[in-house]
Amino acid sequence: MKKKLKSALAGCMAVLLLAATPVFAEETAAKENAPSKNLIVLIGDGMGPAQVTAARNYLKYNKGIDHLTLDSIYVGQATTFADRGEDGDIIVSGVVTDSASAGTAFATGNKTYNAGISVSNEEVAKPFASVIEAAALAGKATGLVTTTRITHATPAVYASHVRSRDNENAIASQYLESGVDVLFGGGSASFLSKEDGGKRTDKSIIADFEAKGYSYVKDKSSLLALPDTTGKALGLFSGSHIPYVNDRKSETPSLADLTSKALAILSQQKNGFAIMIEGGRIDHASHANDFPSTVQEVLDFDAAVKTALDFAKKDGNTSVVITADHETGGLSLSRDNIYELNLDLWDKQKHSSEAISGSLKAARTIAEVKKIVEDNTWIKDLKDEEATQILNGDGSSYGPEGAYNAIISKRLLIGWSGHGHSAVDVGVWAYGPIAEYVKGQIDNTRVATASAQVLGLDLTEATARLQEKYVYPKFKTGSNNQPRFPAKALAEALGAQVDWDSKSKTVKITSGSNVLKLQLDSNKATFNDKSSNLAVVVDHGKLYLPLEAFSQLTGKTLKWDALSERIIK
Amino acid sequence: MKKKLKSALAGCMAVLLLAATPVFAEETAAKENAPSKNLIVLIGDGMGPAQVTAARNYLKYNKGIDHLTLDSIYVGQATTFADRGEDGDIIVSGVVTDSASAGTAFATGNKTYNAGISVSNEEVAKPFASVIEAAALAGKATGLVTTTRITHATPAVYASHVRSRDNENAIASQYLESGVDVLFGGGSASFLSKEDGGKRTDKSIIADFEAKGYSYVKDKSSLLALPDTTGKALGLFSGSHIPYVNDRKSETPSLADLTSKALAILSQQKNGFAIMIEGGRIDHASHANDFPSTVQEVLDFDAAVKTALDFAKKDGNTSVVITADHETGGLSLSRDNIYELNLDLWDKQKHSSEAISGSLKAARTIAEVKKIVEDNTWIKDLKDEEATQILNGDGSSYGPEGAYNAIISKRLLIGWSGHGHSAVDVGVWAYGPIAEYVKGQIDNTRVATASAQVLGLDLTEATARLQEKYVYPKFKTGSNNQPRFPAKALAEALGAQVDWDSKSKTVKITSGSNVLKLQLDSNKATFNDKSSNLAVVVDHGKLYLPLEAFSQLTGKTLKWDALSERIIK
Repeated sequence: MKKKLKSALAGCMAVLLLAATPVFAEETAAKENAPSKNLIVLIGDGMGPAQVTAARNYLKYNKGIDHLTLDSIYVGQATTFADRGEDGDIIVSGVVTDSASAGTAFATGNKTYNAGISVSNEEVAKPFASVIEAAALAGKATGLVTTTRITHATPAVYASHVRSRDNENAIASQYLESGVDVLFGGGSASFLSKEDGGKRTDKSIIADFEAKGYSYVKDKSSLLALPDTTGKALGLFSGSHIPYVNDRKSETPSLADLTSKALAILSQQKNGFAIMIEGGRIDHASHANDFPSTVQEVLDFDAAVKTALDFAKKDGNTSVVITADHETGGLSLSRDNIYELNLDLWDKQKHSSEAISGSLKAARTIAEVKKIVEDNTWIKDLKDEEATQILNGDGSSYGPEGAYNAIISKRLLIGWSGHGHSAVDVGVWAYGPIAEYVKGQIDNTRVATASAQVLGLDLTEATARLQEKYVYPKFKTGSNNQPRFPAKALAEALGAQVDWDSKSKTVKITSGSNVLKLQLDSNKATFNDKSSNLAVVVDHGKLYLPLEAFSQLTGKTLKWDALSERIIK
Repeated sequence: MKKKLKSALAGCMAVLLLAATPVFAEETAAKENAPSKNLIVLIGDGMGPAQVTAARNYLKYNKGIDHLTLDSIYVGQATTFADRGEDGDIIVSGVVTDSASAGTAFATGNKTYNAGISVSNEEVAKPFASVIEAAALAGKATGLVTTTRITHATPAVYASHVRSRDNENAIASQYLESGVDVLFGGGSASFLSKEDGGKRTDKSIIADFEAKGYSYVKDKSSLLALPDTTGKALGLFSGSHIPYVNDRKSETPSLADLTSKALAILSQQKNGFAIMIEGGRIDHASHANDFPSTVQEVLDFDAAVKTALDFAKKDGNTSVVITADHETGGLSLSRDNIYELNLDLWDKQKHSSEAISGSLKAARTIAEVKKIVEDNTWIKDLKDEEATQILNGDGSSYGPEGAYNAIISKRLLIGWSGHGHSAVDVGVWAYGPIAEYVKGQIDNTRVATASAQVLGLDLTEATARLQEKYVYPKFKTGSNNQPRFPAKALAEALGAQVDWDSKSKTVKITSGSNVLKLQLDSNKATFNDKSSNLAVVVDHGKLYLPLEAFSQLTGKTLKWDALSERIIK
């Protein structure tokens, strides 16, 4: 299995190399006469085929509108499989992708393991450049817009590189270095210190963004008041995710609001722009199995699609490409052998299930549950056993909220297969020159290579620049709180040669004229035949060394970036 | 809701009228210089997006082949909603389509209610002509091929018209009149009398086909031995459906075998041909929630697609269009929050669940169930509670077979929302000139109008010819076993005028110079002012009359076709 996946990855790389011919040497620049000057990528997170049909059916039967904006530009569908992540013999991620792995594919053109943010599926991972990074290198303005935390996986894959998507503080810090001009979303917590109400242990970094020229906004009024000529802008509209459509206040911007302002700012730049806009909470609503919110989030996304498409049509020099990272929830439009959908009940929930999950969790009696359900839905006849079902939770981490959504879904005639993702192909929609590159049946990596192609960018060159600078090794933390790295894998990743003499139980690592020898019985080291007091650790038969060893070997001062868990060469 | 659906139907008719310009007067003929001479329509019954992804994943991970034949010609997706069937105020069919309603849409270009076989959604239904019927009228050779009974809904919509899909004996008889040249499938039961082992109460009709020049074959050897020059052929390879891939014997043809022979026969005809080929049992496997069989049936279909595509590429004058009627089962590729698929177990079931359903139903002990499961699958550790679950059945009509499939699916990490259909959009694949007409987001009716367009056929004219000849009224059977018809609806459908005088409680029906008056208190009738002894029945406030009344009114000898439950004008 592993070999098969590896050869699939090699195939992707070959496509990538063919698709993006090097066009610059010292300074990068977008290719002259590229098909498009600007690129808008829109991602509906978790927006599988059934989520799209559901939103259209809602419009058709409840609003008398027979199509989504998306429908006018449907061009194909994409496979989404992840590269199986393997740690020794243990499979740590399956073929059903998460947002990080899928995002890495459509942002950089490379498959990786679930949780990997634009780094390779290796013990010493290499960073992969995204089309946003390549666009920035080529002097284009860039932007990331989402309804989730801006440090969530889908925006993260476009302008940061970490081994784990959970490292959101590092992602925020990397954004500061990325040069991305417009960052709009939720998630101020990863930009603020604990003292300031955030999650960072070092310091708040919003002032650092402001020092680099970013205008900082926190609500809809100040967003709308931003001059289009502002250049750089950081908008963080919530501590975590931006609230669901049904839970928004007057000062909460919609995805279309964010899109409109981002496009207005970026389109001021003469070299063109590249932007990724995510409807990120379709996924969350589907994870929770909150069907009414799923529908409303798809419609919020579709409104942003309209904003983007109107811009592109007027502009005449913009490509738009839209896809999803995966389906979420195993959504089925019908259930229990009934050939009908209770469409008239699809918008009878006042707030998302998330908004009432706290009170559901706090409820202790059937009467309390009934009151909450009655207040938030059309259901006035909740049965005692249903209320008990809610009190008991659904056995998942969603607890009472999961059970509440199961009861709602049953009455709506909607089915789910769980709270996770599924592997079904997702839609691809496109407008402008990029449409020809992504039509038909594609793999999601093609979205990245087509994005680069249409802007005349070189992903390979941008990736090479990143790989010159960083590696992302797995590591263990030693007793002195210092990281120790897998010797063979990291040495080889840094270009050294590793030899093993089984007779003398000695590892010899050669880099240029430098030779490090490690005798494993005694754990003693020599560097260029002189005794060295390197900390040598063997763990589960595997040799680990501190960073110092690799600095000596390569003759470079390697640095450990503890926040991003990477080595800076 | 009703009004909205009606206006949608009107919209479809408008498209139809625009798309198909009349090109013939007395004799029909295909338009000169039509884009294609031949048309191959392939339908994957129940083949939703997840069914397609599943089959590809099976090839990719278990066979090292990274794509389906289908993948090379993906062009779009189609909405599948049914016209809500209403009987008075009672909704008798929902928006989630069945094969009859969806088939009527992609065969004729018109939406109808679930169960309707190419007739309109009205009290007095009108027939709609299919592209196969229009092709036959234009002198083209025609064919229907399926793995289900040949009288099942999907082939039926192309060459028959009945109010209910269950009337399969009528469908078989209508095939005899249809002039369709090649009929390959299962379902000999509707062609044979009860004495001959079939289901007909009148007589066996295979001799009638032979009298009309059809060669009759019943197994793979005789199929393959059929000369390509045979002209007309009836192949019935099973009493009911053709067995699933895993249950086939050496004498069972595959869908590709049937496709290959049908194309060889039809392509002998100089005027070109139109054929519909159905992978009909993807649907059945998904209804049963038998996932391994679902995958194998999609692959059997994909092999037939390859046969058709190879023909079209070599021929150079053939359009191919492929879609599904709907998704079946609410299939999800993953379940229970696990981001993995147990792909290595996907082909470890020896026979379909259908093949062992009899023994599962007959089993009385846990030990018996364990033995059956052990013999047919890789599962050697079935738990007592799982065996009990199988003994108890799953609460649906699938009983123990349903429970068996639930247990298998859980271990395969596959989810289902029930045993019925779902509303998700289905894929559209196409090759040749028709691809331009069906790409992007379409409604399934567009497959029919595009089919006509690409062959230069006139569906409107073909429909008008049928509607001149037949109406399909709802009716009640009177005490004398004679049908009685809803007076107002049928009179109006036959062009008469109906007036109601509330004072005298008299209905007046006028057709040309003929006047029928019915006084409802006395149930007395006069025809042209002379007393008439027509049987006048009022049922639930609705007036019913025998056929004789309508013959008198119209001055025509109307005939009641009791088998097809239609009036021949």
